[in-house]
Amino acid sequence: MSDDHGLLAPGSHRAAGIADDHAVVAAMLRVEAAWLRALATVGTVEADDADRLAGVVAGLDLDVAALAAAGEAAGNPVVPLVAAVRGAAGDERLARLVHAGLTSQDVLDTALVMVARDALARIDADVAAIAAALAGHAERHRDTVMAGRTLTQYAVPVTFGLTAAQWLAGVLDAAADLALVRDRLPVQCGGAAGTLALVDHLTGKPLVVAEAFAAELGLRWPGAPWHTRRRPVTRLGDALVGVCDALGVIASDVALLGRPEIGEVREGRAPDRGGSSTMPHKQNPVLSVLVRSAALQAPLLGAQLHSAAAQAVDQRPDGAWHSEWPALRRLLQLTVTAASQAAELVSGLEVDVATMRRRAEGAAGQLLAERGAAGDPRDYLGAAGAVVDAVLDRMRGENPHG
Amino acid sequence: MSDDHGLLAPGSHRAAGIADDHAVVAAMLRVEAAWLRALATVGTVEADDADRLAGVVAGLDLDVAALAAAGEAAGNPVVPLVAAVRGAAGDERLARLVHAGLTSQDVLDTALVMVARDALARIDADVAAIAAALAGHAERHRDTVMAGRTLTQYAVPVTFGLTAAQWLAGVLDAAADLALVRDRLPVQCGGAAGTLALVDHLTGKPLVVAEAFAAELGLRWPGAPWHTRRRPVTRLGDALVGVCDALGVIASDVALLGRPEIGEVREGRAPDRGGSSTMPHKQNPVLSVLVRSAALQAPLLGAQLHSAAAQAVDQRPDGAWHSEWPALRRLLQLTVTAASQAAELVSGLEVDVATMRRRAEGAAGQLLAERGAAGDPRDYLGAAGAVVDAVLDRMRGENPHG
Amino acid sequence: MSDDHGLLAPGSHRAAGIADDHAVVAAMLRVEAAWLRALATVGTVEADDADRLAGVVAGLDLDVAALAAAGEAAGNPVVPLVAAVRGAAGDERLARLVHAGLTSQDVLDTALVMVARDALARIDADVAAIAAALAGHAERHRDTVMAGRTLTQYAVPVTFGLTAAQWLAGVLDAAADLALVRDRLPVQCGGAAGTLALVDHLTGKPLVVAEAFAAELGLRWPGAPWHTRRRPVTRLGDALVGVCDALGVIASDVALLGRPEIGEVREGRAPDRGGSSTMPHKQNPVLSVLVRSAALQAPLLGAQLHSAAAQAVDQRPDGAWHSEWPALRRLLQLTVTAASQAAELVSGLEVDVATMRRRAEGAAGQLLAERGAAGDPRDYLGAAGAVVDAVLDRMRGENPHG
Amino acid sequence: MSDDHGLLAPGSHRAAGIADDHAVVAAMLRVEAAWLRALATVGTVEADDADRLAGVVAGLDLDVAALAAAGEAAGNPVVPLVAAVRGAAGDERLARLVHAGLTSQDVLDTALVMVARDALARIDADVAAIAAALAGHAERHRDTVMAGRTLTQYAVPVTFGLTAAQWLAGVLDAAADLALVRDRLPVQCGGAAGTLALVDHLTGKPLVVAEAFAAELGLRWPGAPWHTRRRPVTRLGDALVGVCDALGVIASDVALLGRPEIGEVREGRAPDRGGSSTMPHKQNPVLSVLVRSAALQAPLLGAQLHSAAAQAVDQRPDGAWHSEWPALRRLLQLTVTAASQAAELVSGLEVDVATMRRRAEGAAGQLLAERGAAGDPRDYLGAAGAVVDAVLDRMRGENPHG
Repeated sequence: MSDDHGLLAPGSHRAAGIADDHAVVAAMLRVEAAWLRALATVGTVEADDADRLAGVVAGLDLDVAALAAAGEAAGNPVVPLVAAVRGAAGDERLARLVHAGLTSQDVLDTALVMVARDALARIDADVAAIAAALAGHAERHRDTVMAGRTLTQYAVPVTFGLTAAQWLAGVLDAAADLALVRDRLPVQCGGAAGTLALVDHLTGKPLVVAEAFAAELGLRWPGAPWHTRRRPVTRLGDALVGVCDALGVIASDVALLGRPEIGEVREGRAPDRGGSSTMPHKQNPVLSVLVRSAALQAPLLGAQLHSAAAQAVDQRPDGAWHSEWPALRRLLQLTVTAASQAAELVSGLEVDVATMRRRAEGAAGQLLAERGAAGDPRDYLGAAGAVVDAVLDRMRGENPHG
Repeated sequence: MSDDHGLLAPGSHRAAGIADDHAVVAAMLRVEAAWLRALATVGTVEADDADRLAGVVAGLDLDVAALAAAGEAAGNPVVPLVAAVRGAAGDERLARLVHAGLTSQDVLDTALVMVARDALARIDADVAAIAAALAGHAERHRDTVMAGRTLTQYAVPVTFGLTAAQWLAGVLDAAADLALVRDRLPVQCGGAAGTLALVDHLTGKPLVVAEAFAAELGLRWPGAPWHTRRRPVTRLGDALVGVCDALGVIASDVALLGRPEIGEVREGRAPDRGGSSTMPHKQNPVLSVLVRSAALQAPLLGAQLHSAAAQAVDQRPDGAWHSEWPALRRLLQLTVTAASQAAELVSGLEVDVATMRRRAEGAAGQLLAERGAAGDPRDYLGAAGAVVDAVLDRMRGENPHG
Repeated sequence: MSDDHGLLAPGSHRAAGIADDHAVVAAMLRVEAAWLRALATVGTVEADDADRLAGVVAGLDLDVAALAAAGEAAGNPVVPLVAAVRGAAGDERLARLVHAGLTSQDVLDTALVMVARDALARIDADVAAIAAALAGHAERHRDTVMAGRTLTQYAVPVTFGLTAAQWLAGVLDAAADLALVRDRLPVQCGGAAGTLALVDHLTGKPLVVAEAFAAELGLRWPGAPWHTRRRPVTRLGDALVGVCDALGVIASDVALLGRPEIGEVREGRAPDRGGSSTMPHKQNPVLSVLVRSAALQAPLLGAQLHSAAAQAVDQRPDGAWHSEWPALRRLLQLTVTAASQAAELVSGLEVDVATMRRRAEGAAGQLLAERGAAGDPRDYLGAAGAVVDAVLDRMRGENPHG
Repeated sequence: MSDDHGLLAPGSHRAAGIADDHAVVAAMLRVEAAWLRALATVGTVEADDADRLAGVVAGLDLDVAALAAAGEAAGNPVVPLVAAVRGAAGDERLARLVHAGLTSQDVLDTALVMVARDALARIDADVAAIAAALAGHAERHRDTVMAGRTLTQYAVPVTFGLTAAQWLAGVLDAAADLALVRDRLPVQCGGAAGTLALVDHLTGKPLVVAEAFAAELGLRWPGAPWHTRRRPVTRLGDALVGVCDALGVIASDVALLGRPEIGEVREGRAPDRGGSSTMPHKQNPVLSVLVRSAALQAPLLGAQLHSAAAQAVDQRPDGAWHSEWPALRRLLQLTVTAASQAAELVSGLEVDVATMRRRAEGAAGQLLAERGAAGDPRDYLGAAGAVVDAVLDRMRGENPHG
């Protein structure tokens, strides 16, 4: 029992109930119930029995820690879960119907897909909120001049609206990939080695059952099991990492621009937030720091999924599959948390227009060196406003791919 | 000068000319020439001057090693390249037109996109060849029984056709992602800090020029520069890693099934291939080993791109961008090489139907334990054939997403 | 609250109490108590007060989930923990003594070091058990001939004793690195920005207090804080990954040699272990699979620590530090679990000497091709026995570095 | 042929001749020559023949690109290299002596160790120069007050001497690990499957030959081959990543402190360095950016080595070994380059004492909030000076481990 309440992942209470052990167990139980109903669609299970068993499953209150410990013997938690469900079934005939024709991986993969769907819904909502807040900043500050910086040094003038628009465009890029993934989440259904042999043996209509199973859960039946073809998992991972990347850029920029020597933006204050254990004056940019921290972690979690995918041998693999689970869960929780934190960060962001302008004017000599003529930095903004408008158009759906 | 001829990446001669330094330099020169023609479309440069300069650029024979060394002072190779082009321009007026309004990142990002496009064309061709060969195996062996194996042990019977169909489906998954990326490769065009200010100053029509620039190169103008929004790069990376993942599964399976104790498949022999420096009898499955090795490397290269993306601060970042280049190039070369090797591997793959059958029959007791009744493993194949057919249909484009 | 009981990390109940949230909280409380006693050594705190407060701290029963949630506001759990301790102190004078002069990072870093020390003790014990079991195999099977395999194909004859001796040597390599780390675990003590200014202000003897603090906890005072110098963390990580690497080789070899077509070794059976949710005959090599899975995960966790180390800017960093915590905890738990599983795996490993011999004899033609003369594979074992002896000598401490 | 001159790794000309293809080929040839001399020590080869062959080997001018291409057939470049050496031997008797008893991995592993040794010598020298320069800064600025910053915000006062001392301590940490690795670089010597069977067959004294081989090359004979025990490789990798981590902190701090709004340090200027392709005023901190970029890359290269180590199955593995080579080479070149750049960076670093002081005084209200009493920041430096002294003592070898 690892007993993790998120102490070492500050803010992870925002992801409470998302992808945690209880959520996975609940999803596995829903999968087993859906399977019974799918078997009922072809008459292999009586509708009454399916309903009765679904009721049993719904009422089960499993000891997650015990299940976790028992999962080692089989290498995964499905075997003890199925045993528990069968034990609760009441009689042996009903017990035998439970999980009939499925393999552990069908249940766990599908459950993780469902857990991911819930996480994606949360992420989607926060990403939409982030986009809306950033669009507000971009619009409001379309003409707010600030110093552009490249390789840490002053470059040419930009606007804060352009900065926000680029953050927004990054978020829209990530949202587009999320949508692709969300719309195609597949059910896993292959039986012991991807042939659905026992399902065929029991029902004579294995593919009909697979489709019914998918329909019960609102997932897609992809025409074939994907026990050893892990692109659904890596696509999900890549999209999540893409979200964290986009948020990481925002958070890093806010952390930089909020340094006391720069002072052009500031995290909104919240009671008790940003305090130090020793320094009473401190207002640490906690949300930026935590979102940045998430962005530093996500790429390696995504790589873990690919590394597993590349080694998915045989009909079901010998360790690679197992190495996916903690990485996928952590990536889901990390992204849910970071998106929630980032939504709060960007919606509360304070922009110091006067400081931006004062600095741009003070550095005008450098900011206008490219043009070769002195003047007001606001007169050398090029297409900044037009780019802001293009991104806002994209945000409004007029040109979704940019 | 790192002087790398591929000695430590066996087979990388297959990627000769793809993404190497000469290819990058050639692409950068094409970018500079295209920029002049783009400026000509709005009259800022005379068409004659643009042609003359394009001719100068086309005729340049730059010392790549010298350029590489000179690149350190600016942190990238574009500054010395531009200096060389200007030096060759003939007179100062023409020299000033070269690169006017661009920033280094515009040139290098666009050049790497073009280099990637060439690599993708190669990968696409090999992926198509792999898919065709696998479809042949799947069709031919639709009913070839073999032992299914999960967690290394005998599970239920499968067919070699199903195995090949799953490999194929993995390759089709990867191809679909490649196509998405290939169809949307963007030009980079933002000027010093993403405002196109100098282009605006020179032409008054910065976005028209950006579109013309994209059109000259056959790339997409995405409506905004992406100096600090790296999803185009990470999407490319993710798709390439996805290809390597899919090929890695094939290669790992072939390596396993080709072990002498299993002997169900064998790499096709080629003169001199697979030999050992000490053991005369050796027939090492070299292609499988090398493709597997590529699949072990790709995930971390993809992670490098994400890690850079997450830290793309300011208007152009302070190190993250630079950390992309070697990883992207290596990933392109690795994938081109692995796809070429895998094409050869699958097209030459020898399948030992008799051994597969003998083993399945010998292990029938275990393979049929799930069903609970002894018999012929060929009678417990479930939906194996139907899954093969579904994947072949997908291959034929009847159902592209599976 | 992420509520993780290890469901997705089978076997992690073996690491119960190691590095989990309760363990971290307990360690943080011990750190705060030790600090009070350290302040008492220089008279800044009365010994009585220190004892009283230490008693208060020892008696605290904190709500870990609440602490975790409260930790977001400060970016780490130390701030609410200190508030809770101060709240329990009884009066304000005592409350002010708590944590006086420390910064959050002093407490959390030191607590994680202590948690790591406990984990290392567990790993050490299991590594010793693994080494002993492997030495037994190496000794027992010093002359047990088996086929050597390279690049998956038959090479020359080896012995199972040599195989076990190489596994053992790998474990000894890892143990040597563990010992280096364990003997030098440092206390973290720097105050707000690494100057111990407040400690100096309060005591006048900051370095004396730092040394007393280290002594209280049985850790080393490294002469300087390491808030932004993370080699103690990355060394720990590297050593843990090294353990997982060594165990991964063993597990992968066992998984391969235990394939039914090879059958030269087999995981010891345990009641209920290795079962399938659908196939009654299955004896999956669960321990090997899970240890392999750990070895696939560890390298990326180690990389996370290095990635954080490389970005430890300012006097205390803006996100990099935070990205260490989950990776370090997970790596500790993963290694504790894998070492425990591997100890069980190697001590119960069944070796099928007859099958090894039969196969070596059957493949003698290939195994002896290098020599160029047919015969008994047992006559072409070269220095195999001598290498076994050398590794056993090393095991016995006669030549610790090999 | 990948034809890489370092265009995409600015500064890599600093690593010219280190670990490139020519260096690897030269090292492999030295290994083959040393092997002949080792065989001569036991009389298996006549001393004259060994000398003659060593002369032949020394005089060989191999076409590296051709060798690289030919290496695919065997999966590594040793087979064609041995063929070339044998072809040059003059007669068949001599040809047969070449490489007699070795396997490809013996040659390539040993060659890479030698290449690493050369790289380590270069890194050591630059690390020593970095340490000396930092010690100078630490000493000179022992009392130079500056604002301490944590989580991007003002904390308490520090000194630039302390900052430099912490950088120095990080470099000393890394140097200590480098020294451990450098002093124990092992020869690889196992023959086809780690038994030295053919060497035994030819000489009767395989371990004597192995020791002589090691002695010829100035390497350590570790008592057993390490074909599948990769700790020597991962230890090397970990130490190199540790160097990049330490340098990354310095470079990141310099990049931050050199931002125009902060301006407390500045990279020394060099003619033509730091220029932009479009902005004439630019002085980009190129060295910092490039060193930072290296530090962002190293962790994943180190992880690649661990990932390979964890999968080193059989007597020689099926892809994992191959995946080490490019990562190891790249990590060597990256570290050599970064150390050289960092040496230049720190020795030329310009420190703006007046700006530091002005800022510390301006922010005194915040910097002294912890103490709770206003005043001069220089009066609240705690143990800063003592920590500087402790690190300088360590530098002088009085307390090497800190």
